[in-house]
Amino acid sequence: MAFQRKKIAVIGSGFTGATTAFILAQKELGDVVLVDIPQLENPTKGKALDMMESSPVLGFDSSITGTADYAEIKDADLVIITAGIARKPGMSRDDLVNTNAGIMRSVAEQVKTHAPNSIVLVLSNPVDAMTYTFFKTSGFPKERVIGQSGVLDTARFRTFVAMELNVSVEDVTGFVLGGHGDDMVPLVRYSYAGGIPLETLIPKDRLDAIVERTRKGGGEIVNLLGNGSAYYAPAASLVQMAEAILKDKKRILPSIAYLEGEYGYNDIYLGVPTLLGGKGIEKVIELELTAEEKAALDKSADSVRNVMKVLQ
Amino acid sequence: MAFQRKKIAVIGSGFTGATTAFILAQKELGDVVLVDIPQLENPTKGKALDMMESSPVLGFDSSITGTADYAEIKDADLVIITAGIARKPGMSRDDLVNTNAGIMRSVAEQVKTHAPNSIVLVLSNPVDAMTYTFFKTSGFPKERVIGQSGVLDTARFRTFVAMELNVSVEDVTGFVLGGHGDDMVPLVRYSYAGGIPLETLIPKDRLDAIVERTRKGGGEIVNLLGNGSAYYAPAASLVQMAEAILKDKKRILPSIAYLEGEYGYNDIYLGVPTLLGGKGIEKVIELELTAEEKAALDKSADSVRNVMKVLQ
Amino acid sequence: MAFQRKKIAVIGSGFTGATTAFILAQKELGDVVLVDIPQLENPTKGKALDMMESSPVLGFDSSITGTADYAEIKDADLVIITAGIARKPGMSRDDLVNTNAGIMRSVAEQVKTHAPNSIVLVLSNPVDAMTYTFFKTSGFPKERVIGQSGVLDTARFRTFVAMELNVSVEDVTGFVLGGHGDDMVPLVRYSYAGGIPLETLIPKDRLDAIVERTRKGGGEIVNLLGNGSAYYAPAASLVQMAEAILKDKKRILPSIAYLEGEYGYNDIYLGVPTLLGGKGIEKVIELELTAEEKAALDKSADSVRNVMKVLQ
Amino acid sequence: MAFQRKKIAVIGSGFTGATTAFILAQKELGDVVLVDIPQLENPTKGKALDMMESSPVLGFDSSITGTADYAEIKDADLVIITAGIARKPGMSRDDLVNTNAGIMRSVAEQVKTHAPNSIVLVLSNPVDAMTYTFFKTSGFPKERVIGQSGVLDTARFRTFVAMELNVSVEDVTGFVLGGHGDDMVPLVRYSYAGGIPLETLIPKDRLDAIVERTRKGGGEIVNLLGNGSAYYAPAASLVQMAEAILKDKKRILPSIAYLEGEYGYNDIYLGVPTLLGGKGIEKVIELELTAEEKAALDKSADSVRNVMKVLQ
Repeated sequence: MAFQRKKIAVIGSGFTGATTAFILAQKELGDVVLVDIPQLENPTKGKALDMMESSPVLGFDSSITGTADYAEIKDADLVIITAGIARKPGMSRDDLVNTNAGIMRSVAEQVKTHAPNSIVLVLSNPVDAMTYTFFKTSGFPKERVIGQSGVLDTARFRTFVAMELNVSVEDVTGFVLGGHGDDMVPLVRYSYAGGIPLETLIPKDRLDAIVERTRKGGGEIVNLLGNGSAYYAPAASLVQMAEAILKDKKRILPSIAYLEGEYGYNDIYLGVPTLLGGKGIEKVIELELTAEEKAALDKSADSVRNVMKVLQ
Repeated sequence: MAFQRKKIAVIGSGFTGATTAFILAQKELGDVVLVDIPQLENPTKGKALDMMESSPVLGFDSSITGTADYAEIKDADLVIITAGIARKPGMSRDDLVNTNAGIMRSVAEQVKTHAPNSIVLVLSNPVDAMTYTFFKTSGFPKERVIGQSGVLDTARFRTFVAMELNVSVEDVTGFVLGGHGDDMVPLVRYSYAGGIPLETLIPKDRLDAIVERTRKGGGEIVNLLGNGSAYYAPAASLVQMAEAILKDKKRILPSIAYLEGEYGYNDIYLGVPTLLGGKGIEKVIELELTAEEKAALDKSADSVRNVMKVLQ
Repeated sequence: MAFQRKKIAVIGSGFTGATTAFILAQKELGDVVLVDIPQLENPTKGKALDMMESSPVLGFDSSITGTADYAEIKDADLVIITAGIARKPGMSRDDLVNTNAGIMRSVAEQVKTHAPNSIVLVLSNPVDAMTYTFFKTSGFPKERVIGQSGVLDTARFRTFVAMELNVSVEDVTGFVLGGHGDDMVPLVRYSYAGGIPLETLIPKDRLDAIVERTRKGGGEIVNLLGNGSAYYAPAASLVQMAEAILKDKKRILPSIAYLEGEYGYNDIYLGVPTLLGGKGIEKVIELELTAEEKAALDKSADSVRNVMKVLQ
Repeated sequence: MAFQRKKIAVIGSGFTGATTAFILAQKELGDVVLVDIPQLENPTKGKALDMMESSPVLGFDSSITGTADYAEIKDADLVIITAGIARKPGMSRDDLVNTNAGIMRSVAEQVKTHAPNSIVLVLSNPVDAMTYTFFKTSGFPKERVIGQSGVLDTARFRTFVAMELNVSVEDVTGFVLGGHGDDMVPLVRYSYAGGIPLETLIPKDRLDAIVERTRKGGGEIVNLLGNGSAYYAPAASLVQMAEAILKDKKRILPSIAYLEGEYGYNDIYLGVPTLLGGKGIEKVIELELTAEEKAALDKSADSVRNVMKVLQ
């Protein structure tokens, strides 16, 4: 018997990756290896060292190291992928998809080589297609390749509802299916404050406005920042999923999961409610949908397929 | 009886200010108002909103708002100042000092107007002179105007020692006096691992190297990042001081304190061991120094005075 | 400006009171004064000191003191009352009620004298009548006198559901109205796992069994212990309510609240959903009830009135 | 890859064992199995269930089960032994030792059978002899059989010093060698507040009184309680050691360790500074002792040997 800390690789040392590493370490979920490309090796090391130097005052024992050498993720237990570029002016959506898919394939090869038994969380954009790309390239079993979008969407929804009602965020729950942003399928009927359906607490027009604000939640931050996109809430969302897995918590959380017949879809990664535990996605939870919800989910699935078609 | 959350203003929404706000909120130490200049109003709002949106998943009830309007810090309990510019190529040190002193005076006027009873923590560079500037401009009593440098220096020192010995950071303590960087006066004889003096655990040359690395700790991060400076450990250090004050913990922590005769100095802000509690600096702790230590502290004080002379 | 820790008085140093004090201190919610009768002064001091001695290893700064002198609760911010005797063999229910009401009146006089602005949480049995007794004796406004039973009932319900479904307790919510035990009115239609109504996840007979087990939850522990009753979950429930109030969290939690027309009742303390914040009960949340639910709640109210009639 | 929670067996469901289980669960260090004798099976189950029912409100996902069947500790990662009787009126010390040694042998056989790879922490009294008994009976390697006394002694010492100086317990450290109580060998010269040697902060007579109070710390609680002995601080101390091991924290903590030449002793369990990590005791840290300290440690070792002689 010899206990070892878990090893967590975070690929991509941008704001989201770095913030993810920081929260993982604060929670002592494991030792973190932050990886980026050779050109960013030093800044990656710098961020990692700066975080380490906060450990005595924050009171955590987790090492955080920065590297450009994938050999250092050897035998990682969990891999979190935030790598990828943002869309630049003049770049077509298809170019973005193909560039990030190329990055994802390369990351997948490295993870397959160095951490073949890891569970993988993907955030890179567009996340459904990128999770699919990792899945196909790595050959990992589906329960170990998981995308994040719904935890973030519900976090935003819950925040807006808590502001609207002036109640604790802890007492508000939300529920979404499908893709991110415009493709998000909110199930407001499964959303509550203190267990009370939101539809009885908030007038319809206000609730619609909150749903719409949630859909545009990423864009709202992009517009405010002017330069760059959200990273605190995305990082926190990744950590919640990571914690559910590493501590085998059996959380019911929305994940981007590979579907084989569930909800009537096949060979696609789509946002659905899942049971997250020590094996990764331990179950896709299937719900009865209304005709309207199913239509919205179909539309969301179509969007994902359209992006996937771009993949060369 | 009606309990209200503490109100904490963080002035400056750069990486250090934003990270400070994030950790304060995570610890539910109070509601945070993040303030920056009008040109940065939207990015400041964006960062604050992004942090808020992490609250449902991280499980905290603290509001974080961004603003460029100082009226929003009204009656803040604690004010943390991270505002100021970094030295730019071609800029003389004196120009930097005067530019930041101008910013500090302006911040001090606002704090005096809107939060006249607050306790103030200063991080802005050069921190001894900037804390002095705030003190003089605001007219606040000395126990309520406090600078940070020693908590960060000891955090770095402790990190390096823990790495050297491969022990928990929780069991390593460090002790510094004087200024930041080259002016830091380490009291290695008051530094331990598990209570055992470091001098008996680490060979002298290795310990000297660790002290030297600590002195250059800020520069090490600057060099690695290439662009920008450390913010995780500085933010964590500010939060530790904030927590000691807001929770009246009576922590013994190094602070940049206004001296009136202590250690033989007058009318100067200098790094000394202090008791931090609900009144701010509740006591400057005076220690017997060796001749060598006193000489080093004199040199540190001289450096501070040289910077202060620049202040117009 | 001088920050002081909150002061929390816990009346009754039995297992529930002591465990409440311990969790309050662990969470650094304030300094705790544990009070019991003169005959138990030394054991009370002993428990308090033992808890204090755990603070260096658990890492909290809260003082815990034991006393038999009510003067030591002077100006407490929050008072938690766990005092009272348990029913002894051969004792009639009416005798129990009158004995505990006598204790409660005496405690109320002390609290009124020494902590006249405090918010008060009552656990003593039978809790509806004892909260009413405190309210009448103290003359405190209704929002500052609050009883606990629903948080515990829902905690038990959530535990049993989480066991049944093998999911995280964090993802299960429950909802109850009315009194404790047999008088509990569960609103299963407002109870969920991951936001999904339990009725769609658990067969009716199993769900009925879980409700029944919740009703008898206190008795189940009493029977297992053989001697004594539950105290861990009751203490944790009190602390959750205390935290909601002290941190002004605006939690939606079931409380035993004084009703003046809400749900059609007057001059009675009854379990209803409330908003708990810095002022105590900031709002009684009224829900549409089905005829069946209203009938059950009427029955629960009748039970409370029957107990109240006993009060001399 | 499939992550499982750690499994922790706590043997003995008295106040110390139960409180240990509760804190372990609160910290989500693993799933806890609380074991006691068949006559206490139901109360053990009752305590475990009561703790479980606190998990939704305290927000932890750890199962706690009570049992009298050692088969349920199968493959436990860590075993904490609090079993044993307290000295009863008229019982000789030798009778106590032999009774508890019998219990310990029986426990050791069970642990050897059901959790042969576990790391074992012993609290049972007299702890040096009981740890030795477990070690000999189980045949486990020495690094996996560890006794607790020094963490508790230093916790008490730190509490008394923090009270004396009115400073945070977080800034006070203590250092002890040798046995518990009268045999404790305090190294005051290695004890500090904020890194400052206590000898320079507290007058000698006060410091002597604090040392003496620490020696008698267990008795002080026994006298106050009137019936029973301390359990909060002992439980917290066990959890700190458990956390150091389960999270491989490499803490420098005093342990009762098996010595093979260290400090000049052989074939004895004695309190010494150790490095606690994922392998258990990873190192016994040897310090230079003064002649006086060595003499006191010799006396402590003699006491242990005297108790060991009693073992039949």
